[in-house]
Amino acid sequence: MAESEGSNGVQFFEGVEKLLEIWFTRTDGNSKQCDLRNIPRQKLESLLKIVRCEVISFIHNDQVDAYVLSESSMFVARRRFILKTCGTTTPLQCLKPLMLLVEQYAGFDEVEDVFYSRKNFKRPDLQMNPHQAFEQEVALLDSFFKDGAAYCLGTVNRDCWYLYTLNPLEGDNKKRHRGIPEPDQTLEILMSDLDPEVMAIFTREESSSAAEATQKSGIEKLVPNMMIDDFLFEPCGYSMNGISSKNGCYMTIHVTPEPDFSYVSFESNVPQASYKDVISRVLETFQPGKFVLTVFANKTSPAAECPRELEKTSSFGDWLRHDIQYCRFKNYDLTYAFYSKFPS
Amino acid sequence: MAESEGSNGVQFFEGVEKLLEIWFTRTDGNSKQCDLRNIPRQKLESLLKIVRCEVISFIHNDQVDAYVLSESSMFVARRRFILKTCGTTTPLQCLKPLMLLVEQYAGFDEVEDVFYSRKNFKRPDLQMNPHQAFEQEVALLDSFFKDGAAYCLGTVNRDCWYLYTLNPLEGDNKKRHRGIPEPDQTLEILMSDLDPEVMAIFTREESSSAAEATQKSGIEKLVPNMMIDDFLFEPCGYSMNGISSKNGCYMTIHVTPEPDFSYVSFESNVPQASYKDVISRVLETFQPGKFVLTVFANKTSPAAECPRELEKTSSFGDWLRHDIQYCRFKNYDLTYAFYSKFPS
Repeated sequence: MAESEGSNGVQFFEGVEKLLEIWFTRTDGNSKQCDLRNIPRQKLESLLKIVRCEVISFIHNDQVDAYVLSESSMFVARRRFILKTCGTTTPLQCLKPLMLLVEQYAGFDEVEDVFYSRKNFKRPDLQMNPHQAFEQEVALLDSFFKDGAAYCLGTVNRDCWYLYTLNPLEGDNKKRHRGIPEPDQTLEILMSDLDPEVMAIFTREESSSAAEATQKSGIEKLVPNMMIDDFLFEPCGYSMNGISSKNGCYMTIHVTPEPDFSYVSFESNVPQASYKDVISRVLETFQPGKFVLTVFANKTSPAAECPRELEKTSSFGDWLRHDIQYCRFKNYDLTYAFYSKFPS
Repeated sequence: MAESEGSNGVQFFEGVEKLLEIWFTRTDGNSKQCDLRNIPRQKLESLLKIVRCEVISFIHNDQVDAYVLSESSMFVARRRFILKTCGTTTPLQCLKPLMLLVEQYAGFDEVEDVFYSRKNFKRPDLQMNPHQAFEQEVALLDSFFKDGAAYCLGTVNRDCWYLYTLNPLEGDNKKRHRGIPEPDQTLEILMSDLDPEVMAIFTREESSSAAEATQKSGIEKLVPNMMIDDFLFEPCGYSMNGISSKNGCYMTIHVTPEPDFSYVSFESNVPQASYKDVISRVLETFQPGKFVLTVFANKTSPAAECPRELEKTSSFGDWLRHDIQYCRFKNYDLTYAFYSKFPS
């Protein structure tokens, strides 16, 4: 991925991603013919110009289009749009043009749910407007959404994770009669201070191709039965998308390997009653010094009991838990946890 | 209570309190002879000058000294110091002199736990350094405490509640061998937008004495068997402390009745397996438009199961829950919830 130069002249790259997930619907309930994938590719590419990134690879199945971007990934399903971008990209700048494209080409006329989230940046001062401060991001999101609620999970003065989502009141009639939501869940593991030997795999010096890095690191074994689209950057850095034709699930991993600012993110919506095994495999693979763990699950998800399980998990091997927090939103339960190797 | 004049010339008073609670101990474990109440009264009064408030009333029993202040309350027990002050007071400015007094007169040499918390201010711009922003308060606290962790519960862009506490790692040997902690719990209800008819009780126009306001409002029935020290300000405003000689418990209520910025806080450490009845009585008494609810309970507290109970309580009568969050700290579990009357 592209390197930025910090104000002190030292090369720096912000691996921490901004993650935007939007679910669309129709006010008349008749959204069967609507599909975000009807938006022409060229229009999506123009949208990404505003975000300051571009498509570098693409795979798809009948349930989801998966793009590897110059800065992270984009997943477009029938009614769910996911844009995850790192570096100094500006994903919230695309909200207005995205809404216009969705209305014009996809047929949806309402946003059902929004999740904008990110870990605290290592260098917020290098970000562009409105991403220098969460308050600015929230102000922009509030100008689009009526029921937006902004949260900061974890420790404000150390490692934390910001979330903006819609949290309408129970009593809001408009939202009440939607019926049973489809099962949905998202697991994210945001890792920092990673093992330099593992990180070396994600350099051109040590791996001659993305496939070699995927295989050597053990990424290919993390979630089975995924069609993998991987990319190894020059001189270092790695991105991969995985999609499953069986259930329409995705996974995505992004690696910033430089020792001074190493960062790896893992994200997937694979439905599981327990994420302990997946989490353990991810930790063994990347060997982070510390990580943020987030699990979203709605009431109908197989992962609905994960908060209880994580509550009991005060350590994963050498990684000890410092923080665990739960939020109950109208449609989703969220668990946030922070672990680090002791001594941190 | 004293009124401040806002920058726009309109009278304004910040009812929202800054709440500082510190537990002291001795590194050698031998603290039986130590007592915060050995600090001379005149030294405490000098301390309060730094905070910009003063003592206006005092009661005590063999377990706790309870002071009504010109801006809220102070409770001094053997090893627990509580300072709760509203308006534009500066409680964090007293940390250093407090530590010196504690060492010199009380005999403790270590801070076992700290809780600094407050709701978001209505007018942060009117506060004095370091209270204009939570980040500044945290920076000052971090200069005193090694294991400090700062949190923001609730919605950053609407109603939220800040907390700074010590959250040392499980593996920290120094803290691990303390044995079983004494049961402890704190319930706070921070109410805004209150019923003007109820608020009128707390004016000199409608009540001729504090005792009349306490009786007419129903405050005297909220928690039974308390020795009450109440104060009605001129022309309006009300404070009360209650202490129980039976179990050393306290309660404290502060009322800012002006319609433009009405605010009432209720706090108590009475141990209960369920707080539903107390909460309901407080809500019926004050009729707030919205309120923040926080419950701290350690593992040995009778209130340890309150988080589960509150999880199931999506409403108290007309007050609907918007938010509920849980944090697990090393020694305490915290539940935060926000409710408002619908439509808010």
